[in-house]
Amino acid sequence: MDERTTGSRAAELRLSERVIPVPVSVSPEARAALALERPAVGPLPRLDDKAAWNAHILRVNTARAAAMRDPIMALPVRSALNTIGGVPVYIAEPEMIPADSRDKALLYFHAGALVLLGGECVGLFARLEAASTRCKVYAVDFRNPPDHPYPAALEDCLAVYRALLEIYDPEQIVVSGASGGGNLAAAVPLNARDLGLPLPAAIGLFTPEIDLTESGDTFQTNRDIDVVLTRGLPELNALYADGHDLAHPYLSPLFGDFTKGFPPTFIQSGTRDIFLSNSVRMHRVLRRAGVEAELHVGEAMPHGGFGNAPEDRELRISFLHFLAKFAGWAKP
Amino acid sequence: MDERTTGSRAAELRLSERVIPVPVSVSPEARAALALERPAVGPLPRLDDKAAWNAHILRVNTARAAAMRDPIMALPVRSALNTIGGVPVYIAEPEMIPADSRDKALLYFHAGALVLLGGECVGLFARLEAASTRCKVYAVDFRNPPDHPYPAALEDCLAVYRALLEIYDPEQIVVSGASGGGNLAAAVPLNARDLGLPLPAAIGLFTPEIDLTESGDTFQTNRDIDVVLTRGLPELNALYADGHDLAHPYLSPLFGDFTKGFPPTFIQSGTRDIFLSNSVRMHRVLRRAGVEAELHVGEAMPHGGFGNAPEDRELRISFLHFLAKFAGWAKP
Repeated sequence: MDERTTGSRAAELRLSERVIPVPVSVSPEARAALALERPAVGPLPRLDDKAAWNAHILRVNTARAAAMRDPIMALPVRSALNTIGGVPVYIAEPEMIPADSRDKALLYFHAGALVLLGGECVGLFARLEAASTRCKVYAVDFRNPPDHPYPAALEDCLAVYRALLEIYDPEQIVVSGASGGGNLAAAVPLNARDLGLPLPAAIGLFTPEIDLTESGDTFQTNRDIDVVLTRGLPELNALYADGHDLAHPYLSPLFGDFTKGFPPTFIQSGTRDIFLSNSVRMHRVLRRAGVEAELHVGEAMPHGGFGNAPEDRELRISFLHFLAKFAGWAKP
Repeated sequence: MDERTTGSRAAELRLSERVIPVPVSVSPEARAALALERPAVGPLPRLDDKAAWNAHILRVNTARAAAMRDPIMALPVRSALNTIGGVPVYIAEPEMIPADSRDKALLYFHAGALVLLGGECVGLFARLEAASTRCKVYAVDFRNPPDHPYPAALEDCLAVYRALLEIYDPEQIVVSGASGGGNLAAAVPLNARDLGLPLPAAIGLFTPEIDLTESGDTFQTNRDIDVVLTRGLPELNALYADGHDLAHPYLSPLFGDFTKGFPPTFIQSGTRDIFLSNSVRMHRVLRRAGVEAELHVGEAMPHGGFGNAPEDRELRISFLHFLAKFAGWAKP
């Protein structure tokens, strides 16, 4: 349908000012989420100012925990902070677990760009995941920069995975993560495989930050269209990498070699997600390597989803169908 | 990661001027395709000026056939124009068909927004599909507006499907289409099911035009980012619908009821595709109805793909894997 375009163009695109209307193709809850006011923040600290980073991180984590706490603590879930493999891990167990999922474990890596949302937030995420997956959840409170940059988080997550292998058969374990946690959910199995460890039954990558080089096209096309993560995270990526090569597969698992075996992988993103390119590229890389991989993309959905709109719930149910198919979990 | 966004916003987004660089995440062939000059066109005819529309359509079809003809005629494929069910159909058969695909048929509906690219183009598309799917292809030269608006195209395609059911078992037939042809590839099985006809083994929807109301978010977010189809096609949709309700499931199959049974469906789009929303929404609708559906999205890919880049070939191979799994076709 070339006949609809006009004139010649340079290879780069020059777009004029535009208004993107509220989408009519999503639920009222989703539209409300897109219209939420986001808290303003000042400029980020300088890369080498550790004290300022720690203050910034504490401020963000405290505010997020306070905003999430009450509804999540009311969920019918038991949770506690333990130490597993020498690492703090929040264990959350729903009051009701369907029979087929009772012997299963979800190893969960939290969002926060590999820097933020540690501590109490991890316990809250653990409870949320337990309620939504109806399974026992181990959520790792991995170390973070500036005091503990790469490879601290990866080492912590791998130590917990090793410890879980003492308790569970690998096929009883599913590994998942959101955003920065999606980075670790791909990097840990890659690292485990390279070390000769057995692989988990399945993996869930939710709007995953798996390319710290930010080479994907939607870092450009969805810039400022993604209302949750309006732009990339180069400063946080540099803080995490601490001079290591951003393109190394343990930092950017999108560039890993998956031809040597990788578990079935569920990948979720949204059409407005700045990490949409991460997600569709990972899907292609895995398919090319012969790995079972499913791509699920939410309409008009930004990074991290709408929150608790029907669209979010439906994608979570798709993940449970995936786990029923590939990891023997209870059907949703 | 709300802390990365600044200030409050209205529910609609106001974006300033921007430059979208050439993506670094795709092949050189894909980059070259994105940089291709597109022919300029004048304004479209008035909706009621049939003579002007017919002249416009002839001009477009002639130019496209001339541009495609030579390399496609050189493919190792036999093709001929026949009449099936009273409708002109181009039949194309590759010289080599793998054993498992020899008893199979691909019923193919061509691109062109349900208005354009009839005649010789259909024969060329048939040859291209035969070469890429390695199977016998029946490509329908359905009637088009302005002289034959809806439901002429749907009736023609359904007549050919009925006629093929006399030659083949339904499980030997796969139905697919691109763009406007993707509309028919979804509408024909919906219509067939409503008439009590058996359904084909599988369906392929390539960057499908399945929502003539253009309600999806990427009609806005990918406007002018999709270099192939820079904007929607409201005039052509009105010409096709001829006063019928654009939202009827036979005109916009995205709004169909798939809970009464529908074949496994392969859906392809790209992150720059203006029909990305069509594609991800169809995937969700089918999944919700319990239909086997796979979503495949090309990185930085516009409507219709790059042409013949490695990315296009890989997506075609994914379709063949899908047909091997769900329709018993030869593995690629």
